[in-house]
Amino acid sequence: MEIHQVKQELILTSRLPDMGYLPVKVLTSVSGSTSVAMDPIGVKEGDWVFTIANSAARDAAGDKRYLTDLTVGGIIDNWRP
Amino acid sequence: MEIHQVKQELILTSRLPDMGYLPVKVLTSVSGSTSVAMDPIGVKEGDWVFTIANSAARDAAGDKRYLTDLTVGGIIDNWRP
Amino acid sequence: MEIHQVKQELILTSRLPDMGYLPVKVLTSVSGSTSVAMDPIGVKEGDWVFTIANSAARDAAGDKRYLTDLTVGGIIDNWRP
Amino acid sequence: MEIHQVKQELILTSRLPDMGYLPVKVLTSVSGSTSVAMDPIGVKEGDWVFTIANSAARDAAGDKRYLTDLTVGGIIDNWRP
Amino acid sequence: MEIHQVKQELILTSRLPDMGYLPVKVLTSVSGSTSVAMDPIGVKEGDWVFTIANSAARDAAGDKRYLTDLTVGGIIDNWRP
Repeated sequence: MEIHQVKQELILTSRLPDMGYLPVKVLTSVSGSTSVAMDPIGVKEGDWVFTIANSAARDAAGDKRYLTDLTVGGIIDNWRP
Repeated sequence: MEIHQVKQELILTSRLPDMGYLPVKVLTSVSGSTSVAMDPIGVKEGDWVFTIANSAARDAAGDKRYLTDLTVGGIIDNWRP
Repeated sequence: MEIHQVKQELILTSRLPDMGYLPVKVLTSVSGSTSVAMDPIGVKEGDWVFTIANSAARDAAGDKRYLTDLTVGGIIDNWRP
Repeated sequence: MEIHQVKQELILTSRLPDMGYLPVKVLTSVSGSTSVAMDPIGVKEGDWVFTIANSAARDAAGDKRYLTDLTVGGIIDNWRP
Repeated sequence: MEIHQVKQELILTSRLPDMGYLPVKVLTSVSGSTSVAMDPIGVKEGDWVFTIANSAARDAAGDKRYLTDLTVGGIIDNWRP
């Protein structure tokens, strides 16, 4: 799992139907790289979160059928990068 | 999931039969690295898209039998890298 | 599998219910990058451990339903990085 | 999926029986890193190919029992890196 | 799959019971990074080997229940990095 900060919601012109309708967030890592994750929790811009990758990400999104490889797993308290 | 820009269609001299016949696109990431993804949506050169990796990529391509580890999941609106 | 040093326990304001209640630890690699892992062993700050990633991480946490992509697999004796 | 150039066949002193007997090729990426892939197609030194990783790589090799995490999926025509 | 050189056996103070009792080896890649792999073959310090990652690594270790994400798959003959 990795630590990321929430940067913004991602506005999608189109998405595959099986992705479901969870919000999709743009995240930045401590080293500055950008990723995109499904958000079943409802995190806000600036929150520090940890993310779950690959097969566990699909269950974390709430349904194994969801098409995701990265999902927000929780909010971190008092994180100082 | 990652954010990529569509660079071109990939012309294949031969491919494994189980790959199916979806278009295959060359993508570049914000940091400049190159990847190849199946495209079930029909994205165009220059579009900003997000991509789904690994086991979810196969379902995203429309059929778990498809041989892919990266699939275009949607088009991003108003993205400024 | 990778070698990591335990840095601290991660305090979570919220987490997905299916993550279970194992402690979650912040780890650093030899090259200085930061990861987060479930800890079924009870490792302490400063311990050198090895970690198991992806699908095996879920079984390593004790239950395939646990939502993790990285789990502490053991403590390393006499490691000098 | 990634784009690689075929460098040489890999001569193996011993291999696990469940790997099967497909040729194994050494590949280099555009950025110069080295990988090893199973080759069900019969690619030649200097060919540009694309490769399929992880679980799809096993099916791409022709049998889910094959022990591989990277398989050559096709030959690319007219590639200029 | 990747090419690695065997550096040393890893001495474990404790390990999860489901890891089984195969030797665990510290490996270095051509670019100098360090990984840890299960060794069902019995490779020696200094050997050049190739390694299999993720789900195939578990079968390569001899049993899908083994908790590993990297397993030695074979010894390479006459490798000059």
